[in-house]
Amino acid sequence: MPPNPIEKSALPTDRVAELTEAVESVLQCLTPFLRASEDDYSSLTTERHLSSGCYSTGDVLESYLSHPDQLREHLSLNLPSNGRGLEDIASSTSTLLQHSVNTSSPGFMDKLWASPSIPGIAADLVLSALNGNDHVFRVSPALTLIEKHVGEELAHLFGLSDLNSGGVNVPGGAAANSTALLIARNVRFPDLKEVGLRGISSPRLVIFASEAAHFSVFNAAQVLGLGSHSVKKISTTTDGSMDPRALKQALDATIAAGEVPLFICGTAGTTVRGAYDPLRSIGQLAHQYNAWFHVDACWGGAAAFSRKLKYKLDGCEYADSIAYNPHKLLGVPQICSFLLGKDLRAFWYANTLTAGYLFHQDSRIPPSGLSFSHTTAVPEGKLVNTPAGKLSSFGVHYDWRTSKAIQNAADPRAVYDLASFTPQCGRRPDAVKLYFHWRCYGREGIAKQVEGAYDGAQYLARLIEKEPTLHLVGDVNVPCTQVCFYYVGASLKLTSSIQDIAAQNTHFTRLISAGLLKRGWMVDYAPGSGRQEELGDFLRIVCNRMTTPCVAEGLVQAISEVIKSDIETTPPEIEG
Amino acid sequence: MPPNPIEKSALPTDRVAELTEAVESVLQCLTPFLRASEDDYSSLTTERHLSSGCYSTGDVLESYLSHPDQLREHLSLNLPSNGRGLEDIASSTSTLLQHSVNTSSPGFMDKLWASPSIPGIAADLVLSALNGNDHVFRVSPALTLIEKHVGEELAHLFGLSDLNSGGVNVPGGAAANSTALLIARNVRFPDLKEVGLRGISSPRLVIFASEAAHFSVFNAAQVLGLGSHSVKKISTTTDGSMDPRALKQALDATIAAGEVPLFICGTAGTTVRGAYDPLRSIGQLAHQYNAWFHVDACWGGAAAFSRKLKYKLDGCEYADSIAYNPHKLLGVPQICSFLLGKDLRAFWYANTLTAGYLFHQDSRIPPSGLSFSHTTAVPEGKLVNTPAGKLSSFGVHYDWRTSKAIQNAADPRAVYDLASFTPQCGRRPDAVKLYFHWRCYGREGIAKQVEGAYDGAQYLARLIEKEPTLHLVGDVNVPCTQVCFYYVGASLKLTSSIQDIAAQNTHFTRLISAGLLKRGWMVDYAPGSGRQEELGDFLRIVCNRMTTPCVAEGLVQAISEVIKSDIETTPPEIEG
Repeated sequence: MPPNPIEKSALPTDRVAELTEAVESVLQCLTPFLRASEDDYSSLTTERHLSSGCYSTGDVLESYLSHPDQLREHLSLNLPSNGRGLEDIASSTSTLLQHSVNTSSPGFMDKLWASPSIPGIAADLVLSALNGNDHVFRVSPALTLIEKHVGEELAHLFGLSDLNSGGVNVPGGAAANSTALLIARNVRFPDLKEVGLRGISSPRLVIFASEAAHFSVFNAAQVLGLGSHSVKKISTTTDGSMDPRALKQALDATIAAGEVPLFICGTAGTTVRGAYDPLRSIGQLAHQYNAWFHVDACWGGAAAFSRKLKYKLDGCEYADSIAYNPHKLLGVPQICSFLLGKDLRAFWYANTLTAGYLFHQDSRIPPSGLSFSHTTAVPEGKLVNTPAGKLSSFGVHYDWRTSKAIQNAADPRAVYDLASFTPQCGRRPDAVKLYFHWRCYGREGIAKQVEGAYDGAQYLARLIEKEPTLHLVGDVNVPCTQVCFYYVGASLKLTSSIQDIAAQNTHFTRLISAGLLKRGWMVDYAPGSGRQEELGDFLRIVCNRMTTPCVAEGLVQAISEVIKSDIETTPPEIEG
Repeated sequence: MPPNPIEKSALPTDRVAELTEAVESVLQCLTPFLRASEDDYSSLTTERHLSSGCYSTGDVLESYLSHPDQLREHLSLNLPSNGRGLEDIASSTSTLLQHSVNTSSPGFMDKLWASPSIPGIAADLVLSALNGNDHVFRVSPALTLIEKHVGEELAHLFGLSDLNSGGVNVPGGAAANSTALLIARNVRFPDLKEVGLRGISSPRLVIFASEAAHFSVFNAAQVLGLGSHSVKKISTTTDGSMDPRALKQALDATIAAGEVPLFICGTAGTTVRGAYDPLRSIGQLAHQYNAWFHVDACWGGAAAFSRKLKYKLDGCEYADSIAYNPHKLLGVPQICSFLLGKDLRAFWYANTLTAGYLFHQDSRIPPSGLSFSHTTAVPEGKLVNTPAGKLSSFGVHYDWRTSKAIQNAADPRAVYDLASFTPQCGRRPDAVKLYFHWRCYGREGIAKQVEGAYDGAQYLARLIEKEPTLHLVGDVNVPCTQVCFYYVGASLKLTSSIQDIAAQNTHFTRLISAGLLKRGWMVDYAPGSGRQEELGDFLRIVCNRMTTPCVAEGLVQAISEVIKSDIETTPPEIEG
C-alpha cells in the first residue's frame, strides 16, 4: 500500500549505544589535545616555554596560512557517496584537531576568546542532543524559561532593572549591535517597517560611535539601509575611549543641520585596546538628545560580574540596550551572545509580526500585537512628505521612550515565543550554556576568573614596560585585558618621516607576531590610530582567565627570543 | 610586583578529567531520555501507541503551556553567588530534560526538524571543545577549509557549478534569506552602502515571493530598509506553489510603474504544505527581468541529495542564491544553515569591509577589496538626485550579473577570511556538523533517509485519506513530508457562513492537536489560505526520517481515539 515499501532497516538503531560510541570517540581524540595545553602550563612553570603551543605541528601553521592548498592536502575533505559509518568520527576528529588552533593553550592570546569552559561544553552537548529551538514556547518550555531568566539576571547585573528589563540570545555580537539599531529605528519611526526609507524626505537619521568602535556598528547602518555615511565617528582620547566633548559637538552639529540623533553607541571594552567609553556622560547626552543609547559591552561587559571591576561600566544603567557576549572573556563556548534591554517592549514592538503557522494566537498577548504593521497613531508621525519646515515631530524634545508605540506593546514578561523579539526565526537556546557555567562557578567564581584575566594583563603590562626595547601603547594600567606595544629597539634617522616610522613599526610588529607563532604563541596585531604615539601596526596581546603570571613571563621571554633571533641579528629591511 | 598577586589556585585544573566527568554526567542523563524514545518505537510496533511520547510528564505539558509559572516552579533557575561545581551538571541536565520536549520521540511531528543525528552531535561536541571561530583563517585553518569545501559541494549538489560557486554558514534560515536580499541590494545598487535609502528618488525596488513563502522573506524587506510594502505577494495555485503567470503579471506591472524588480524568491518546500514553486519558470523570469533569483530551499532542499526526488528542485540551477538548512530534514543538530551562491564574488562585494584589527592585508586579495566603500564607477550609477525622467540606468535591460562591481571583486576561492562574505563577525563553523554527518552516512545514506521521510508522508496521507471523517488539504500525493488535514465529521447547517465553517474547523483542529498532545504526540496546526477548501486552521503533521509505517499507523489511531473521546462524545461548542 505505501508507494515505496519502507524497509525494516529504516527502523531506528540503538541511538543510545551510537551516541555513547560517538562521544567516546570524540573524547579519546580530545584527551591528548587538551593534555597538550596542560603540559604547556607545566613547561611554562618549569622551563618558561611552551611544550606544544597553539598548533600541534608547530611552525607549519605560518606556511599553511600563506598556502592553504598545502593544508588542504592533509585534511580528509572528501564527502563520499557511501557512508563510512560512525567509525569515521574518530578519524575526522583526529585530523581536524591535528590541524586546528588549540584555543586551550596558554599561548593562544590572539582573540577575545580562548579556552572553552567545561560546564559550557557540557551544556552544548545537552543542547545538541535535545535539538531544541526556543523560537516558540510550545516546543521548548524549559529552554525558553531558562533563556528568559538568564536574560533578566544578566540585565539586572548591568543595572537594567525596570519592570520590563531583560534579554534575549542573538547569534553574535554583530547581530546584537545591528538588532539594537533596528529596534531603535523601528521604535522611533514605526512607519519605516512598511514604507521603508526610500523616497522619504525626512531628516537624516544619525548614528554616533567612537572611532574605536567595532566595525559591526558601522556595518549595521549600511545593512539597515541607513548608509555608512549616516555614522558619525567620534574621536577618542589618548586612552582610546570616546571623547564626550566631541560627542556633544557632533550632536549639536547634527541638531543644527536639522538631522535626528537616532542612536549613540558607547563601547565598554574596545576590540583593540580594551578602552571603556565614559558611559555615564554618553548616556546622559543620549537622554538629553533623545537618542537610543546602546552599549557594546560584548567584550568588556565581563566586568559586570566583579564588584571590583564593575566601576568600569559606570553609567551603563542609562542604556536602552546592551550587547554582551559570555563567549568572550567568560569562556562559554561560542556562540553565546545576548542583547539586553531596559524595556523589552521596544524589542517586541520593533520585531513582532504575524505568521499564523508559527505564532498561535495567544490569550496572554493583546491581539493588537499580532499585526505586522503598526498603523495605529504613533506620535512620531508619518515620514513621507514631511515638509522641511515642519520638523518639530522629529525634534529632540519629543520623548520616544514614553511613546504610545511602547506603551501599547505587549507585556514582555508574558511573551514566551522568543522569536517575537529579534529578526531571527529558529534559535539555538545558547543561554543554557551560560546557565550551566553560572551555576557551576557562581557569580563569585566567575568574578574571580574575570579578575584573574584583568590582573594577568596588569602584570604583563608591567613586565613589558620594564623591557627597554618594548614600548606600551597607552598607560601601564591597562583598562581591560589587552596589552598593546611596539618594538622600539631600532634606531631611525632623525629625518625619518611619519610614513617611515609607521612602516618600520609595522614591519617589526609582524616579524614578532610571526616569530611568536613559530614558538607556539599566537598574538595578533592591529593598526595604530595614526596619532604620534600610534604609528603603524602594534602587537595586541589578549590575556584571558587562564593567563597566570607564568604565562605572562613565558610570553615576554619568547618575545625577547624572537627579537634576538629574528630582528637584532638582521638589519631592518626598511629604514628611514 | 603584580598589583594583585595571582593565587596559585588560579592555575588550571585537570581539564581532561573535568571534561570527562562532565560529559559522562550528561550521557547518564541522556540515556533514559533517548531510551524512552526507542521504547516508543517498540510500543508503536506492538501496541500502536506511544509509551512515553514527546514529554516525560505526559499531559502536564498543555497545562504548562498555558501557565508557564507552574513550570517555572519545577525548574532550578537560580543563578547562585557561590558556584555549585561540576556536580551541578547532572542535576541541571536531569531537570532540563525532564521538562523538555523530546524531539527524538517518533511522536514529535510538530516542526520541520526532529531527532538530531549522532555524527552531528559528535561534531557539535568537537566544535565546543575546539571553541573555534572561522571568521578569519588565521585562527581556524582546518575549520575554514571544511566550511569552504562543504559549501562548494552543497552548491554543486544544487546545480550551482560555476567557477565561483560555493556557500557559507549563516545563523539560520531567516538570516540566509535576509543576507541574500542584502547581497542583491548592494550588488545592484552599491551606492546604497554609503548613502542609504533615505532621500533617494530612485524607483521602488520590488521583491517578489509567493503568499506561502516564509515570513522571514517579508521581514527581510523591512529589516533592510526597503519596507514591507515593497514586497509583492504572488498568489499560489491550489497545491500551494507560486503561480508563475501571476508572477509574470506582477513583474509587468512593476515595469509599467517604472519600478525595479530587484529580488524574486522561489520556495522549495513551503513551511506549511511543503509545496515546491516551479523554479524553472520563476528562474527564467528572474533572468528575463534582470532580478536576483533566490531560492528558499531551507526545508525542501533535502531533495537535492536524492536522485529520485531531485526533480522537485528542477530549475534551481538558475538561482543566484539558495538558502538550505541541513538542521531541518537531515537531522543535523541546530543550527546548521547555509547560504549558497552561484557567484560568491557578489557575496564578497556586498559584504566586505575594512577592519584592520581583524582582516589583515592579504597579498592574495586585490587591495581594492579592502575598502569599505566602493566608489569606483559602477554602471548602475548614482541613485541620489536621479531625475525621474532618466531612469534608464535602472532599466531591466542592464545585466547586473556581468557588472564591473562583480568582475572586479576578489576571487572568492582565494578568500579565506569567511567573515568577508556575510554581515556576521564571529561564526561558529556549523558546516563541520554536516561534514561529519555526510561522511558517516554518505550521500546515498542521506538520500535514503530523506526518501524515507517522503515515503512516510505518502503512506500517512493515504491512511488519512481512507478515514471518512478526515479530509486532506491538497492531493494525496503530498509534495514534501507534511500531511495537512481537517476533521470533517461534524455536520453544519446548510446556511452556515464561511466564517462559521472556518471557526468550526479551527475549533476541531485545536481540539485534536490538544488531544494528541495528551497522548504524547505533537502535531502543529496552521491557518488555511481562506480558499473554499481551506477555511480555518488545519492540522499539519511533519514526517521525518524516523517516520516508519508503524509511526504513521500509530498516529492515525491516536487521531481516531482523540476524535472519539474529545469530539464525538461532546457536541461541538461552535455551530453554524
